[in-house]
Amino acid sequence: MIRATIWGENVHEKESDIVAEIYPNGMHNCIADAVRGDGIEATAVTMDQPEHGLTEARLAETDVLVWWGHKAHGEVDDRVVERVSEAVWSGMGAIFLHSAHFSKPFKRLMGTPCNLSWREAGERERLWLTSRNHPIAAGLPDSFELEYEEMYGEPFGIPEPQETVFISWFQGGEVFRSGVTYKRGAGNVFYFRPGHETYPTYHDANVQTVIRNAVRWAYNPAARIAQPTHAPNVPVGNALEPLEERGPKLHKSGEEGYR
Amino acid sequence: MIRATIWGENVHEKESDIVAEIYPNGMHNCIADAVRGDGIEATAVTMDQPEHGLTEARLAETDVLVWWGHKAHGEVDDRVVERVSEAVWSGMGAIFLHSAHFSKPFKRLMGTPCNLSWREAGERERLWLTSRNHPIAAGLPDSFELEYEEMYGEPFGIPEPQETVFISWFQGGEVFRSGVTYKRGAGNVFYFRPGHETYPTYHDANVQTVIRNAVRWAYNPAARIAQPTHAPNVPVGNALEPLEERGPKLHKSGEEGYR
Amino acid sequence: MIRATIWGENVHEKESDIVAEIYPNGMHNCIADAVRGDGIEATAVTMDQPEHGLTEARLAETDVLVWWGHKAHGEVDDRVVERVSEAVWSGMGAIFLHSAHFSKPFKRLMGTPCNLSWREAGERERLWLTSRNHPIAAGLPDSFELEYEEMYGEPFGIPEPQETVFISWFQGGEVFRSGVTYKRGAGNVFYFRPGHETYPTYHDANVQTVIRNAVRWAYNPAARIAQPTHAPNVPVGNALEPLEERGPKLHKSGEEGYR
Amino acid sequence: MIRATIWGENVHEKESDIVAEIYPNGMHNCIADAVRGDGIEATAVTMDQPEHGLTEARLAETDVLVWWGHKAHGEVDDRVVERVSEAVWSGMGAIFLHSAHFSKPFKRLMGTPCNLSWREAGERERLWLTSRNHPIAAGLPDSFELEYEEMYGEPFGIPEPQETVFISWFQGGEVFRSGVTYKRGAGNVFYFRPGHETYPTYHDANVQTVIRNAVRWAYNPAARIAQPTHAPNVPVGNALEPLEERGPKLHKSGEEGYR
Repeated sequence: MIRATIWGENVHEKESDIVAEIYPNGMHNCIADAVRGDGIEATAVTMDQPEHGLTEARLAETDVLVWWGHKAHGEVDDRVVERVSEAVWSGMGAIFLHSAHFSKPFKRLMGTPCNLSWREAGERERLWLTSRNHPIAAGLPDSFELEYEEMYGEPFGIPEPQETVFISWFQGGEVFRSGVTYKRGAGNVFYFRPGHETYPTYHDANVQTVIRNAVRWAYNPAARIAQPTHAPNVPVGNALEPLEERGPKLHKSGEEGYR
Repeated sequence: MIRATIWGENVHEKESDIVAEIYPNGMHNCIADAVRGDGIEATAVTMDQPEHGLTEARLAETDVLVWWGHKAHGEVDDRVVERVSEAVWSGMGAIFLHSAHFSKPFKRLMGTPCNLSWREAGERERLWLTSRNHPIAAGLPDSFELEYEEMYGEPFGIPEPQETVFISWFQGGEVFRSGVTYKRGAGNVFYFRPGHETYPTYHDANVQTVIRNAVRWAYNPAARIAQPTHAPNVPVGNALEPLEERGPKLHKSGEEGYR
Repeated sequence: MIRATIWGENVHEKESDIVAEIYPNGMHNCIADAVRGDGIEATAVTMDQPEHGLTEARLAETDVLVWWGHKAHGEVDDRVVERVSEAVWSGMGAIFLHSAHFSKPFKRLMGTPCNLSWREAGERERLWLTSRNHPIAAGLPDSFELEYEEMYGEPFGIPEPQETVFISWFQGGEVFRSGVTYKRGAGNVFYFRPGHETYPTYHDANVQTVIRNAVRWAYNPAARIAQPTHAPNVPVGNALEPLEERGPKLHKSGEEGYR
Repeated sequence: MIRATIWGENVHEKESDIVAEIYPNGMHNCIADAVRGDGIEATAVTMDQPEHGLTEARLAETDVLVWWGHKAHGEVDDRVVERVSEAVWSGMGAIFLHSAHFSKPFKRLMGTPCNLSWREAGERERLWLTSRNHPIAAGLPDSFELEYEEMYGEPFGIPEPQETVFISWFQGGEVFRSGVTYKRGAGNVFYFRPGHETYPTYHDANVQTVIRNAVRWAYNPAARIAQPTHAPNVPVGNALEPLEERGPKLHKSGEEGYR
């Protein structure tokens, strides 16, 4: 059983009638409902919970984290950002949706600005598959459309992806790398573009399929790495080949390194 | 003319007689001397200068930044780290040497722990070229040795490199990806492993050649990007294809996005 | 159930007493025995069978092909090489072992020389994991040793891997990228270095674990792509956006393109 | 001085009045004229010359080869294909234009089908930059248009690029990775999409800028590798670390390996 946690900012749903009407139970619950089943357990947490719902305990029980945020990026606690990053490095999968391109944990994991151009005009988006038979695209045709979406345009300020899975065409003339994969430490990371809060995108069957596939793809069944940032000293006596210490030294044997 | 700035922590040189003897003018000046010439201007700055020597003005006049730090990683001001990262994204080249794998700007740009195993035993290191005719390896044989070096061992907690240029063999039985390239925004990034402060590594001709080549490789002659993190709104009226606004909206036209 | 086919050249086993003694049932059967079980069906075919054992029918029923060849690379029929390549592009996984770096299908799929340096001296090899928690390394420690192996040394003439999973240390002073992944069309490809025929490498538990893991990793459950090299014409009338034909034409609508 | 050789198939120019009118001196000469100057020497050769104009001597004097072919892909001699591939592996740059996605040398270097979907309808193409400040995009805006072009659509059957530099938007609703970089051996490879023979694409200033930039980018000033496919045996006596031969052997010392 894969344990997915959907993180929702849950701000627009409370402030905008439009969003509340499309997602009466919140975007996070809509996404959780879409992902749940067929070997996936999905529950949602929200930013207003203690520690944004992402305590150490919760992350330890999360195989794949799905993140949607927008208006309150800046209010996310930096300690939670580091905790999420460490969980990814230790093997937790992470899926960032739409405006989460500017979320703190995504920017932290990418090491780049993650900027783009954008336009909110309810235009048509068509996603094209660029990697045939990729597990994230299982069950999908070569292209599918979203009649109403926000435009995100290139250049998209990300590192070169491990694999580009989808590229979007926009009615207004732009393109965008809409599905891209990364590995960060032992964790698989996927960014997926669609999902502006004023359109019913997370009710779309193809979008739901992508997210469900991505949860399966991102899942790493290996035990989580205990100390993903640890840099162990190897004492000379433990060297795998015969070795005699030589030359001047700064550190004592077994000492911690500098950080 | 390529303008290289060598950033030196300059702590060990003042605290350790061994290091002071090997690098009487500081490691940073030794590296600057090695890099200077043949179209490269090189000057050094140190951590104890105001803003660690890396003011906005200085970075604006730096084509390639070379970074050596170790003992005082934690004392580097986070504002300088962001400033350096933004300079890289805008097109400045960056070369991180040896213990700079744990420097704040390198970790910031990678988005990973950058950890490794290590041993200070004065053992032999042999660097093997893995990318023939790579510009960073110009003038070098397929392998070269450093008789006394600190060991760094895999697994090295970095993202998959754009290109792996060198891999090291260590006498004690380890291996390490010692020369790896990345692109972050418009900036070229190179990590190069050798350079423990208690050995005369930066006096080595092959090591000097690599760093000099890397400065040339990392140099991007294009004008620096003015606002490397900007995410511009494209008003509907400016769309490149005829477009009519539809559906509900959250933003007003031309409004700034959320961060 | 994953269906693995082990392809064995089966020449050394018949010509060399040393090899025959280590692998009395042939290297291919030793590998098949190691891979079989836990959801994997494994059978072996050999070069001396009609069409080298790799008929269209056989490939259609193969989820993952494991290839070991050495002495008779040049005798492999080019039609079989193309057939194997097409099967990979259509989604079949492929694992190339040791001297298969110079096999025709591996070189065909890489597009590079795949050359290296080598030495047959029964020296110690130690493989280091470079990608923690990679599924191909499941159940393995950070490093493991083979006391007797042939040396393969860098530079290794491969394209930059999608991911580098293992790097080898050799007693005689060389290093080598020993486990590397690629995607070719819809097919996952893995190269794994160990396995010189005069040593008992394929009886080693860690080596067997790697190959078994790699079979699982390479398996793509999606239906095979029917025509993996097809380049379909999209008639103007079928365009997804309203489109009017303009300008001079070379092709008639629906015509096949040139190859 | 960079020596560029433009290879033209030169068939359509002789068979089609439309093409002859747009390119009265042949497409190859139009491209050569566009590339020449500012440190680049450019000359054209054509398929109808002996050895298709690509003798060993000619390739030895070519720093960067630019390839345009379409109708006669199948007529290119396989020996010339191997010769071109070896030149690339030894360090020659190579740029493949438009329908050269299906040329023998490009497919040979990629190891994949290189297929795509297509439509000849004179539609609008807009190329977007995906890698800001990339040297191949020097002097170009974030996007530029070609009013009349053939459509090429994803999925494009290429290996994941080292870097994606351009992505195209098409009026009929498709997208395409239009500028992609690779390294094959010591050679830099660039594929650039535009250039259907019935439109005046190679007279376009932006297209000319891209090709000129790409020639500079692909140029490797290092001396060509003499035997790019050679796999040298390292005799035990030449090992860089003390090594004693052990165990059974198949090869005599210094013997050639099998191919």
